[in-house]
Parts: sequence; C-alpha cells; structure tokens
Amino acid sequence: MSDLHPAAPRGFATAEFEQRTEAAQKIMARLGHDAMLLTTEPEVRYFTGFDTIFWLSPTRPWFVVVPAKGAPIAVIPEIGGPSMSLTWISDIRTWLAPQPEDDGISLLTDTLHEVMPKGGVLGLPMGHETHVRMPAADFQRLQAGLKGISLADATDVVRSLRMVKSEAEIAKIARMCSIASAAFEDLPNYIKAGDTERQAFAKFKIDLLQKGADDVPYLVGSSGPGGFEDVINRPSDRMIADGDMLLLDTGSLYDGYSCDFDRNFAFGHASDEAKSAYDLAWRATEAGLKSARPGITTSQLWATMAQVLEDGGCSGHQIGRMGHGLGMQVTEWPSHMPGDDTVIQAGMVLTLEPGLAFGDGKMMLHEENIVIREDGAELLTRRAVRDLPIIT
Amino acid sequence: MSDLHPAAPRGFATAEFEQRTEAAQKIMARLGHDAMLLTTEPEVRYFTGFDTIFWLSPTRPWFVVVPAKGAPIAVIPEIGGPSMSLTWISDIRTWLAPQPEDDGISLLTDTLHEVMPKGGVLGLPMGHETHVRMPAADFQRLQAGLKGISLADATDVVRSLRMVKSEAEIAKIARMCSIASAAFEDLPNYIKAGDTERQAFAKFKIDLLQKGADDVPYLVGSSGPGGFEDVINRPSDRMIADGDMLLLDTGSLYDGYSCDFDRNFAFGHASDEAKSAYDLAWRATEAGLKSARPGITTSQLWATMAQVLEDGGCSGHQIGRMGHGLGMQVTEWPSHMPGDDTVIQAGMVLTLEPGLAFGDGKMMLHEENIVIREDGAELLTRRAVRDLPIIT
Repeated sequence: MSDLHPAAPRGFATAEFEQRTEAAQKIMARLGHDAMLLTTEPEVRYFTGFDTIFWLSPTRPWFVVVPAKGAPIAVIPEIGGPSMSLTWISDIRTWLAPQPEDDGISLLTDTLHEVMPKGGVLGLPMGHETHVRMPAADFQRLQAGLKGISLADATDVVRSLRMVKSEAEIAKIARMCSIASAAFEDLPNYIKAGDTERQAFAKFKIDLLQKGADDVPYLVGSSGPGGFEDVINRPSDRMIADGDMLLLDTGSLYDGYSCDFDRNFAFGHASDEAKSAYDLAWRATEAGLKSARPGITTSQLWATMAQVLEDGGCSGHQIGRMGHGLGMQVTEWPSHMPGDDTVIQAGMVLTLEPGLAFGDGKMMLHEENIVIREDGAELLTRRAVRDLPIIT
Repeated sequence: MSDLHPAAPRGFATAEFEQRTEAAQKIMARLGHDAMLLTTEPEVRYFTGFDTIFWLSPTRPWFVVVPAKGAPIAVIPEIGGPSMSLTWISDIRTWLAPQPEDDGISLLTDTLHEVMPKGGVLGLPMGHETHVRMPAADFQRLQAGLKGISLADATDVVRSLRMVKSEAEIAKIARMCSIASAAFEDLPNYIKAGDTERQAFAKFKIDLLQKGADDVPYLVGSSGPGGFEDVINRPSDRMIADGDMLLLDTGSLYDGYSCDFDRNFAFGHASDEAKSAYDLAWRATEAGLKSARPGITTSQLWATMAQVLEDGGCSGHQIGRMGHGLGMQVTEWPSHMPGDDTVIQAGMVLTLEPGLAFGDGKMMLHEENIVIREDGAELLTRRAVRDLPIIT
C-alpha cells in the first residue's frame, strides 16, 4: 500500500510553529493588534500543536495568547498541562478547572495585561466561520477586566494563514485522501444490495480505520431508488436494494488533517438520467480541475463549474457553493461561490464540489480534493471513475 | 448478544419533545424569559431531534428559538431544511448560507421580534459549560437589532432539564454502556504486548463499531511500564511491552447518546503497588455506588469517594472532580466536586470516576456509569473486575 499512502510524518517541526507565529505577528503588527486571543480547537492546535479530544467535553475553556513578539502563551486547565508541555510552548499557565466562579478568567486577564500595553488592542477572531468558545458570561467578565484594552476582529489573521498550507500539512491531507481513495475503490467488494445504510456506513468506516485513518468523524450520505434527495444524512435502517444509488461522503482524519470527498455508486443498474447527471458532474469537476490556479478567484472557479452545469441543462438557482477550503477542519475558508472573491494562492487545499438536481428531485454531487500549485491544480484524491460505477 | 444490548429504539416520540419544550417553558415563565435562543448542537438536538454532523463544519450557524408557548422555531441554513423537516418541528425558516454579510441574523432578529413582546427578555445559555456558537461580530449585530429586548442567562433552563434523563434517553446510554462493556471484556483477546498504542486503539475502536456503536468520537488512554503518568492522551507509536499498564477510556455513541468509562489492564505481570492502587480505586468506586442516591449532593458523593482514597493513604490535594453528568455529551453538568453542591435526583445519569496517584507519579483512574433511581444507583456499565486484569 506504500504507493497509496504518501509518506507523512506525524507532528510538525518546531520551526513550522515559529514560522506560523511570526507570520501571524507580522499581520497583527500591520493591523495594530498588540496580542491575539484564541479559544477554538483548530486555532489553538495551529499555533501550539496541542492535540487533544478534550475539546469534546464542554466543561473547560482553553485559551492561547499570541503576543506581539515571542512564542504563544497557553492559559489552560491543569488537566491539559502534561500534554501541552510536550509541545513547543514553554509558558504554560494553568488553573484547577472546572471552577465556575472563575474558570481561568482572572488568570487570562492577568496574562493579557502582562503582555499588552495600556490602551492596547486585543485581536480576537470574531468573523465568519469563527466563534468564541467560552461561556458568554465569562466573556463579558473578561471584557470588563480588560480595562483600557479594546477588542478588534482578528479573523483575517488566522484566515489568511490557515488557508495556505505548508508542505507538511499538504502531506497529511494527501495521505488521508489516499487512504480514503483506496477505501472507496474497495467499497464494491464489501457493500452489497441487501445491506442496510447503517451496515454499509459501518463497513466503510471500519475499512477506513483498517487502511490507516486515525478517525472518521464525518461520514454522511444517502441511498434511494434511482437516486437520493438529500446528501447530508446520517445512515438509516433502510435496506439498499437493486436499482438504488448510494452516496458516501467522508471527512476522515490523519494526524489531525481531513479529507472531504464523496463517491456515487449504483446497484445492479442505473437509469440513463442518473448516468447523464453523473457525467455532467464529472465534467463540471474536470472544468474546475483545469481552471483552478493561482490568481483566479473562488468566484471565477465557481463560475467555471456552474457554466458546465448550465450548458448541460441544469437550472442555475440550485447551484450554491461548489467547494471550499480543507485542512484541520472538514470545511474551512474560502467558499467557491459568487461574492466570495478570494484570490486563490499556491498552497491552498480546496475541494471541488459541483452538484446538480436531476429527474424527480434527485441530487448528484461529486467532490475531489486538490492542492493549488504554481502551474495549477494537483489532485490529492484519486479521480472518480469516468462512468457511474455499478455494483453487481 | 441480546442480553448485552438492552433494547433502545432509535429516535424519540414527539410527545417527549413536547414535554421537554413545555418543561422549559415553565422554567422560562418562572424566570420571566419570553423566549430562549439556542445555538449549540446538544441544545438544538434536545428540543428538535435534529441530528446532523454538519456541526463539524464551522461554516454555518444554526439557531432554534423556543417561544413562551408552542413548538420551537428552527432558523437554519437551507442545506439543513430537508433534515429538519423530518423532525417534529414545522416552523422552519431558512436562508441560503453561507452568506457572510447576513448569515441568518436578520431572519433570526425578525423571528425574535415576532414571538417576543417589546421590552421582553430573551434567555440565552451564557453560564458554565455553554458557549454561543456564532461569530462574535454576528452576535453583536444580533444584539444591536434586538432593540428593547434584553438578554438573560438561560443556563439553568437547559441544565435542569438535560441533567435528568427520560427512560428513552437512559435506554440509549444503557445500550452504549453495554456495547462498550462487551468490547472491554473482549479486549484481552485482541490486544497484546507487541501492539503499538495506535494499533491497540484502532483495534478497540473497530471492535466497538462491530459490536454496534454508531461512532467512537472520544477515545483516550495511555500505556507505560508499571503505569502511566497522563490519562487523556491520543495514541502514540509506543509499543506496549510486558510489564506495561494500559488505560483506555471511551465516549462512544449510540443514537446520539454517550457512554464514558475506562478500564485498566496490565501486560504479563503487575507490581504490588499497581494492584493496590487498582484495589483502592475499585473500593472508592464501590463507596460511590453505595452512596449515590436522590437527595445527597454531588459534593457529598465526592466526599464519600475521597474518604476511601484518603483512608487508603492517597493525599487529598490530588483529588479533583470525581465524575460528572453524562448523556448527549461525554461530559455534562453536574461535577462531583467540593462546591458543586448539585442535589442528585432520580433519572440523573452520572459517572463515578475516582482517581489517584501512586508510586513514582503514576496515575490510576476508574470509571463507571450509573443512573440514579429512587432507591439508589443502578449500574449501566458492567462493573470492572475486582482485581487488576493481567493480559498474558
């Protein structure tokens, strides 16, 4: 399987975290931010390497402060101290959480006052695709304690950095795409008409784990006679039958980095209209693959794929976003859609995801994952086969 | 396996959602809240039954408004419309997200003005273990648009309801505990010295899926010679050797409800001090099992277990929280710790989780899951064996 799984060492060199921090600090300086506060899992992991599934528990907040100069400071519950001390972060300040009456707020306030000037500006991601992961009442308390410090939106700091991946990040995503490609290619060997959706999903998930995925947090799909009407379902107890179509779409993880793509299958036979819809989505993806390159915008990339669908007779109003960024999260900035207008750069990892409706309200969705190189798109997934695969 | 897996039908009857809503509305009336706004996955699912892993994508916010009377109103991205329409919710208002310049904010504002009186009070969970899942800038915009409406903390509304489980919820947790108990009991058959931690974790995860878990989002643990020093690690490439101890701790899901418990194993042989530490943690758990009942507080439950550890020679300062609530999330309110003081009620599902340090900085952690009945604790997990199991 070595050809299927490009080498991807786990973790990152300390130099990479230093580069990320320095790049952030340059943007912060340009924006006039004296420090940045991070409260969410991907951002904390991006700057520290701290990788824990403790985030699934809502009990404790986790904070990282990126000062104007020097390494980030972790302000975290004591239970995370040993794990954080294995990262490149040396300034780790802990409290014994949970402690609802002061769950790290005074420790965080003191830290911010220590690293920031009076009347300074604290950057905090407050824009699209972000949220503040701490109790709203604690956030109010924090703001009240930050006398003389004002808040400013730092979304652009993390957005601009995280959108462009390093080679080490790309290698992890490539490996995950390779594992999932192999699982999709083997799928006709182990999913059959007669399986329930729930059985089919479980078999696919187990195969992903056996092939080397660390986890399969995202697996959605649908099945139905001649096609399906929704593409983001969890599995049901519906039995897959001859004449059905099945979609599976997975965001699986390797070393904290995700793939996000799907594949379509027919069982026994497929209608001409399903085959045509598959062909149209395949060609729209192909157009996206050919046009994705540094310098064009996400809106232009959308328009290229939309044109193929429109030329194929698909009505325009059903075409929403047709792909997005990909990395630590199953979806990330930017979005391929009118009005996004993000300029595509080398190093961006993106999905191409043209979808259309056909027949009696049925849906067809294709998806591939790519990395943008200087001369165009490089596929990270192994390309979906040219014709709708039929499992017999 | 039927004896291992108590029956637990999927989903909930509409009557259960109606009861939850009416119970919330009674508390809201007492608090003087005219509506409640929910933005987080467990809360949205609790009141609507909307069950999607789309929450993994940070791109879109999801809102539910619980008015003073009548069913909740969903204000959600169009992509979730078909799934939401399968729930008991009939008032579903959608917008074509992502739409960063107005990502549902005006639709949500209009909805709140429609169902609330002028000068009304909007409840929002703002307390411990909650957060507001939407961009902070959008939250500011929402507040600016809510002219005349004031915000109040609604944490107690969702906390008091979610802490006490229905029989349908208990059945789902019981089934998941039964599946994981079976996987832990089989573990000595498939995990051996010579496996890496990563291989051992993967085997256990696959066995959980094969035995009927829908997903294994939470799996942590540790291994080391004679014991381990941290209990919340992800797996490494460290090879498990003769003389090692291994801890695995899983929060696996059945129909959206979680177990949360661990088991300890020794390989080949174990030291007397490890056996003693196991015995002490086992007896502390036993004391918790015997004392957990309606009417005592979480602080008293903590003290009962802490006393056994202290009598066994464990220094008190290492004893933090010793268990918590369990349900849709791997940890929920309340916490068994000094100062929590939550009065335990029948229907609460709790973990008992006494831990201690032994030897040269090693840790021992036991965990069981229980439901509180009128006459005391009922085990949902199959009790850990009396003596430290040794895999040979």
